[in-house]
Amino acid sequence: MKALWFELGEASLREVPMPVRTSGESLLKLRVAGICNTDLELLKGYMGFAGVPGHEFVATVMDSDNADLVGRRVVGEINIPCGSCRLCHAGMGNHCPARRVLGISGHPGCLAEYFTLPDRNLHPLDDGVSDYDGVLAEPLAAGLRIADQTPVPDSILVVGDGKLGLLTAAALRRTGSRVWLAGHHEDHIEMLRPLEIYRDHGGLFPMVVDCTGNPDALDDILDRVEPQGKLVVKSTYAQSPAVDLSRVVVREITIIGSRCGPFAKAIELLRNPDVSKVLANVRQEVFPLEEALAALRVAAEKGKLKIMVEN
Amino acid sequence: MKALWFELGEASLREVPMPVRTSGESLLKLRVAGICNTDLELLKGYMGFAGVPGHEFVATVMDSDNADLVGRRVVGEINIPCGSCRLCHAGMGNHCPARRVLGISGHPGCLAEYFTLPDRNLHPLDDGVSDYDGVLAEPLAAGLRIADQTPVPDSILVVGDGKLGLLTAAALRRTGSRVWLAGHHEDHIEMLRPLEIYRDHGGLFPMVVDCTGNPDALDDILDRVEPQGKLVVKSTYAQSPAVDLSRVVVREITIIGSRCGPFAKAIELLRNPDVSKVLANVRQEVFPLEEALAALRVAAEKGKLKIMVEN
Repeated sequence: MKALWFELGEASLREVPMPVRTSGESLLKLRVAGICNTDLELLKGYMGFAGVPGHEFVATVMDSDNADLVGRRVVGEINIPCGSCRLCHAGMGNHCPARRVLGISGHPGCLAEYFTLPDRNLHPLDDGVSDYDGVLAEPLAAGLRIADQTPVPDSILVVGDGKLGLLTAAALRRTGSRVWLAGHHEDHIEMLRPLEIYRDHGGLFPMVVDCTGNPDALDDILDRVEPQGKLVVKSTYAQSPAVDLSRVVVREITIIGSRCGPFAKAIELLRNPDVSKVLANVRQEVFPLEEALAALRVAAEKGKLKIMVEN
Repeated sequence: MKALWFELGEASLREVPMPVRTSGESLLKLRVAGICNTDLELLKGYMGFAGVPGHEFVATVMDSDNADLVGRRVVGEINIPCGSCRLCHAGMGNHCPARRVLGISGHPGCLAEYFTLPDRNLHPLDDGVSDYDGVLAEPLAAGLRIADQTPVPDSILVVGDGKLGLLTAAALRRTGSRVWLAGHHEDHIEMLRPLEIYRDHGGLFPMVVDCTGNPDALDDILDRVEPQGKLVVKSTYAQSPAVDLSRVVVREITIIGSRCGPFAKAIELLRNPDVSKVLANVRQEVFPLEEALAALRVAAEKGKLKIMVEN
């Protein structure tokens, strides 16, 4: 089968053996996949990655021990915990030290004709949700994760108007909070009008979410957090940014690291027509799997939003 | 009157005019003051400080509009909020942007024969609490602050066995948690035996408190925090330490900046005989006010615990 392959900083499209599902896993046929900044970081050598990348997808279940799943369109959670360790038993499988992660660590990704995932990772999609919207369940879930970690205040500033910022702002807006967005792309901010999210007007906020992906921006972002307020960080960086912790202490700011989120809630969001309007704008180009290398190149262009690959 | 004076990196003992109390303030005569690392940082130029330092004290109220206070031994909170701004109205006076801070910013400190503070900052001390123990109400309150900010787990690691670490460990132990202490001074850790606090035994903790005062240690300290755990930072640093925020994101760690705490609860702690035994060991030398310069020099020596000045 065809698959995108990353190795030693080079991307290629190649023939690889069909994956074999183990007991408890489904064999999945890709419908549509998204390219994420993490994929671009993996290509640059983040985590010493080699293999098939990709972790945002809608797929069809071709084979499974669970007959109810076969033939269904599904999205899926990317962490594959060991199921046996202390953290797994404590319900913190996403932090299992022995976990594999779809297309990121120890488990081949979805940028291929076929791939596998445990049945328990899969969430069937309703007919009302398109493949293109479904691909964004994973990053939307990541935005929703924030509300699972900490009480969300009335007013939130999201900094960064790339795809992560737009999806995080949309997810947080649906919790009922008023959300402002800071960024350089007027047209990106315009996309959030259906959700009544507007351009940052300055001032301090009880919660600020960093979606810039730019470690040098962090110090300025800290300035926008109210005393006793919260700074949520969602980006992973190759280098360690310098953070003015004295300001964090004196103003008693809480910094919250936030990662993968609840798929069931994200799928609920996908059914909302206003959210769907936003997602249609976040999706910028769709390439066939044969042109995955071109898709990668476009995804890496500055200011690009979501690039997808279709099987 | 005699006062310690900091200016342009130089400490001196000099004659300064008696302070004049305004309406709502008490005139205080120093009994005993503590020298804090913040004082040593101010001397090095932190915050461009010039004037009388000192913010840990037990004093006698000499004059006050509040007749009940006159003649009482008191300790006192160090923040003097404006009382009028949005944060003051929201009950966050400790974060008032216009606040003055005893011996740190805009208000002369307690390392002098006399000083003033608003009546509402003062807390009378019972006869059962010695002057020497009372001086430690301020740093003990800072340790107790953590439990006011966030739920405290069953097991806590305090890193750093200087005076801040010892007092923070003691304060956290009294919340009922089991507390371990990491540090290089075997004799300091021994001091905490009456409270059943023992030497760090390795492993991960749901809460780690940084009391090292060493920005370079932060990255190693982050390694001791469990996934979804909390890192509490209490030290202020002249430079911005580099923090591996990717690890904070991937492991969903929460970093909590923590500062001044509840005096009433700290005074309760001072009444506990086991706490008092620890405090007796944390206090290392007491100098008369006339020898405040020698006290400063000793306080700056490596590995020294609490140095006090007596009027």
